[in-house]
Amino acid sequence: MVNETQHTCSASSSSRSDGGSSSGSESSKDNSRCSTPVLDADRHERLREKMRRRQEAGDKWFSLEFFPPRTANAAVNLISRFDRMGAGGPLFIDVTWHPAGDPGSDKETSSMIIANTAVNYCGLETILHMTCCNQTKDDITGHLQKAKRLGLKNIMALRGDPAGEEWEEEVEGFNYAVDLVKHIRNEFDDYFDICVAGYPKGHPEAESYEADLRHLKEKVFAGADFIITQLFFRPETFLKFMKDCQAIGITCPIIPGIFPIQGYHSLRQLVKLSKLEVPQEIKDVIEPIKDNDAAIRNYGVELAVSMCRELLDSGMVHGLHFYTLNREVATTEVLKRLGIWKEDPRRPLPWAVSAHPKRRVEDVRPIFWASRPKSYIYRTQEWDDFPNGRWGNSSSPAFGELKDYYLFYLKSKSPREELLKMWGEELTGEESVFEVFTCYITGEPNRNGYKVTCMPWNDDPLATETNLLKDQLEKVNRRGILTINSQPNINGKPSTDPIVGWGPSGGYVFQKAYLEFFTSSEIVTALLKVLKKYELRVNYHIVNVKGQNITNAPDLQPNAVTWGIFPGREIIQPTVVDPVSFLSWKDEAFALWIEQWAKLYEEESPSRMIIQYIHDNYYLVNLVDNDFPLENCLWQVVEDTFELLN
Amino acid sequence: MVNETQHTCSASSSSRSDGGSSSGSESSKDNSRCSTPVLDADRHERLREKMRRRQEAGDKWFSLEFFPPRTANAAVNLISRFDRMGAGGPLFIDVTWHPAGDPGSDKETSSMIIANTAVNYCGLETILHMTCCNQTKDDITGHLQKAKRLGLKNIMALRGDPAGEEWEEEVEGFNYAVDLVKHIRNEFDDYFDICVAGYPKGHPEAESYEADLRHLKEKVFAGADFIITQLFFRPETFLKFMKDCQAIGITCPIIPGIFPIQGYHSLRQLVKLSKLEVPQEIKDVIEPIKDNDAAIRNYGVELAVSMCRELLDSGMVHGLHFYTLNREVATTEVLKRLGIWKEDPRRPLPWAVSAHPKRRVEDVRPIFWASRPKSYIYRTQEWDDFPNGRWGNSSSPAFGELKDYYLFYLKSKSPREELLKMWGEELTGEESVFEVFTCYITGEPNRNGYKVTCMPWNDDPLATETNLLKDQLEKVNRRGILTINSQPNINGKPSTDPIVGWGPSGGYVFQKAYLEFFTSSEIVTALLKVLKKYELRVNYHIVNVKGQNITNAPDLQPNAVTWGIFPGREIIQPTVVDPVSFLSWKDEAFALWIEQWAKLYEEESPSRMIIQYIHDNYYLVNLVDNDFPLENCLWQVVEDTFELLN
Repeated sequence: MVNETQHTCSASSSSRSDGGSSSGSESSKDNSRCSTPVLDADRHERLREKMRRRQEAGDKWFSLEFFPPRTANAAVNLISRFDRMGAGGPLFIDVTWHPAGDPGSDKETSSMIIANTAVNYCGLETILHMTCCNQTKDDITGHLQKAKRLGLKNIMALRGDPAGEEWEEEVEGFNYAVDLVKHIRNEFDDYFDICVAGYPKGHPEAESYEADLRHLKEKVFAGADFIITQLFFRPETFLKFMKDCQAIGITCPIIPGIFPIQGYHSLRQLVKLSKLEVPQEIKDVIEPIKDNDAAIRNYGVELAVSMCRELLDSGMVHGLHFYTLNREVATTEVLKRLGIWKEDPRRPLPWAVSAHPKRRVEDVRPIFWASRPKSYIYRTQEWDDFPNGRWGNSSSPAFGELKDYYLFYLKSKSPREELLKMWGEELTGEESVFEVFTCYITGEPNRNGYKVTCMPWNDDPLATETNLLKDQLEKVNRRGILTINSQPNINGKPSTDPIVGWGPSGGYVFQKAYLEFFTSSEIVTALLKVLKKYELRVNYHIVNVKGQNITNAPDLQPNAVTWGIFPGREIIQPTVVDPVSFLSWKDEAFALWIEQWAKLYEEESPSRMIIQYIHDNYYLVNLVDNDFPLENCLWQVVEDTFELLN
Repeated sequence: MVNETQHTCSASSSSRSDGGSSSGSESSKDNSRCSTPVLDADRHERLREKMRRRQEAGDKWFSLEFFPPRTANAAVNLISRFDRMGAGGPLFIDVTWHPAGDPGSDKETSSMIIANTAVNYCGLETILHMTCCNQTKDDITGHLQKAKRLGLKNIMALRGDPAGEEWEEEVEGFNYAVDLVKHIRNEFDDYFDICVAGYPKGHPEAESYEADLRHLKEKVFAGADFIITQLFFRPETFLKFMKDCQAIGITCPIIPGIFPIQGYHSLRQLVKLSKLEVPQEIKDVIEPIKDNDAAIRNYGVELAVSMCRELLDSGMVHGLHFYTLNREVATTEVLKRLGIWKEDPRRPLPWAVSAHPKRRVEDVRPIFWASRPKSYIYRTQEWDDFPNGRWGNSSSPAFGELKDYYLFYLKSKSPREELLKMWGEELTGEESVFEVFTCYITGEPNRNGYKVTCMPWNDDPLATETNLLKDQLEKVNRRGILTINSQPNINGKPSTDPIVGWGPSGGYVFQKAYLEFFTSSEIVTALLKVLKKYELRVNYHIVNVKGQNITNAPDLQPNAVTWGIFPGREIIQPTVVDPVSFLSWKDEAFALWIEQWAKLYEEESPSRMIIQYIHDNYYLVNLVDNDFPLENCLWQVVEDTFELLN
């Protein structure tokens, strides 16, 4: 009778599905740590396991290829693209390796740093391409070590194009991709997942299609985990290739490379590089419309969708790899039409989870960096433990310095001229500043007709959740309560709620109301009198740039302000108001006045002096209403403060 | 303007009030641990700090003195008394040292083991008395080491009565309490808090009152932290003594020893031992009523109350130490009349916190041992970390064996004859067992007219909270769902709720509904079919004595079933359903059928075979309803199961 049921585990077994099971004294440190309840098995698997699990579950997936940009500004834009396209749920992205562009360097545009940013700051599973031709063993090992240090877990091992026409095999050198695969396995054991390239039409330099298949088999047998193919134009090309691979014993996943045609010139260039021939039926369509970009793109989308459908319907294909050419529209369109672009806005946690293996257990962050997650990741990148260093005792947390506010992935996407239009070419007093904050909240144009779409503390327009508080926020900003972060109270909404939900379904999410703002010392004086009435209900921290710190928190313990209760899980509390890290945040928040705003103006100019005055004299205030089941009292606190002032 | 406010802490400070602040690499393990939010500062302080804090806060407190009992049965009763009197909130209890009774041994009645039980199993701050006269240095060090090992933190250092009439000082020996104080400080540094005895009338063997005061000063200067006095009969005796102490430079706390007269004979005996004289005005009252125990006790209470009031009103006394003579009524009465008996039923956590210093950070337990906390403490006493080993990853928890179910502090308070009356002299079938369970729930007498006030899984009558479920529990027990543990769902009641509240005020407590029971395999078969309908809502674990384990939990993660949200705090989740420790609990729960119930009957007797049959064939089931904001569905699950069976 018992055996008929689905889930049976023997009494003696204590194995865990995430492979984290451990025993013996060696593991005692691990066991004594507060481990993150596994909300999302994905976060704990390596890429090849994710692939296998998705395939077993019958889930279709996609991945996206990008190349490193040429300029720092283009890099900032590419990273925004990562964030936007990451929302669609790619299984991974990959970043190509351009030997000519110093790909392993620390430049903001290098392949290495772009891949690093994708993993660490955008939370994307990422494959870094790497070529080996004309490189020394030491160079290659150095690149791999650096990749490992940065938290990269996946390498696409390629030969790369030989420099010069007269290429000859080097004895003991890296002549083919298989040499690189072997080297990675020799030097790094099983640390990396390795991907290799497959050529559905055969590599252009191969003796024959069959010879090329044998090379591919060598690469797989040398340790590659899966194959991504060169682009092709007809689904049958890929399906035949796949059958041929299987016939000679290649059993690993083979992922078709999809190239949605996006324009006449990019197609021609790619064809030239890849030495492929465009089939006549495609040429026939394209040639007549070659000057009509929109028409070509529409055709390209159409063609890609129909090819992808055929591949998926064959039952042999579970994932699709897209050559995006760093563009967004065509690929997104194809994915949406295929129905594999993730439309579900639900998040595993209320903030975007970093993909660095070290951070996979991170499950709590201070609320202060809610709008500056990349800054938080940057400043905590040296931490060894997540979330334990944050969860409980946060005494002496060593936040990294953030002196360079123009660190490229923290750089504003808007150029100086645009910022001046939004925040005022000329400020006439503190009220001009109030107005900027108010316009940011309302979304209305400012007096010069420009919308304020970002602020020094927030590079994006108001979050949907914050929109719930829009009316109240507008009112208080007008009067000099300059809000930079807030959340409404939530008393047990379903975890699937489209606005405030997060985590697995079947759970309930909660929040304490939070309000953070800059304000003048006059308002702070009145506020403190008002807060006496709310002593038991509202926790506050009030600090100025010099570090004078006023609080009614009984000690330096964090206050949980966002938490969730899930079936069969421990409680998750991903966001806290942590009094100790507030002092690190305070430095950053005050510095942003100067670095991002004051410096737009000439030294000694009245506008600059106004911002400097605010920086020097205002206070940064945070308020938590602990009575989350009742109506948020923070607006009443502010109302009472204004009343007292009148 | 800022400086007018109460709480100001400098920006650079990151110190914590509990002294747990740490920095540098040595502390990284500590920092990375999930630390318990400090709910109750008390738990983290040593006794002398608690005393100081209470005094500074103007809180009056009391403490209770007990002596070790003579028999194991008396020890079991004394421990129940610790639990009951502990609820009144003593700052500490102390256990006297009886050199004749092998006080440092492992006997259940030794001073050492009684103190150990008070600290570890009853959660009471405890002082162990220790005498030094006629003992070797090695003996004494051995006792102290053992005390330390057991988690005892406080020693009352006494000389003790010399053996024999002809006592002489030993050279280099322990002649006076001061020698013991010095020895403790030499060998154990600041580990122990040390208490010494003060004699308001002077020690009977002292040359003079003044000489005795000088001895007391020596003891304090040798390292004693506070003084408890011998009993006295007039408040002015104590107040004069205290002033005299202060006059010669004794500044540590001096706690008056209060002796509520409870009977003629006990008074006479004590007076003889302490060589004190009873004042004439007291003799005058007592002599005429010396055969009327109740009258003497009433008088004793009256006298103690008036003396205590006078002491407290003097402003010099903050704590009162009671010589209980191991009795409950008189002392409790005095304390209640003084208004210092804690009437507030609120608990720091839903379960009684152990006072062992190692366990002070424990803040999560599996729900299974809710009615057998002493067993849980015993079986986890070797664990190094609380609560981290339990909180998160609970793979391979090493529960101690619990083979001896008659371990004295787990022993039933009821003798065999009484148990037979409650649980049936003769069982006629499984239904007789159902009846016993049902009577325990309802509180109605069984067919032989006896009330069932305890069960093998629960030594006490039904908890107040469980009473909320009484009607439903009765119904299901009648039909063979033999419940041993349950809790209702709670969706955010104030933490001050008299029945389900716990933790500091201003918070909210939550529970998921829980039901745990034994039942037959027929019922389990039907239940499993019903549970399919509740797949997403109800988590279940079903196991038999052989360890066949059926569950729909996706992995072996704990499910939080009790949690609390508090102002300025992280979330506390003190109770979990932990699938791994359930398998350890299962062994204990099944064994209790045999050890506590079957063994009441002759081998091979029908009654014994019925219990044995249940033990061999029934399943232990636990159910959690994850939808805590909705009406508890577990009763419907059971109802559906019965319906399916019909």
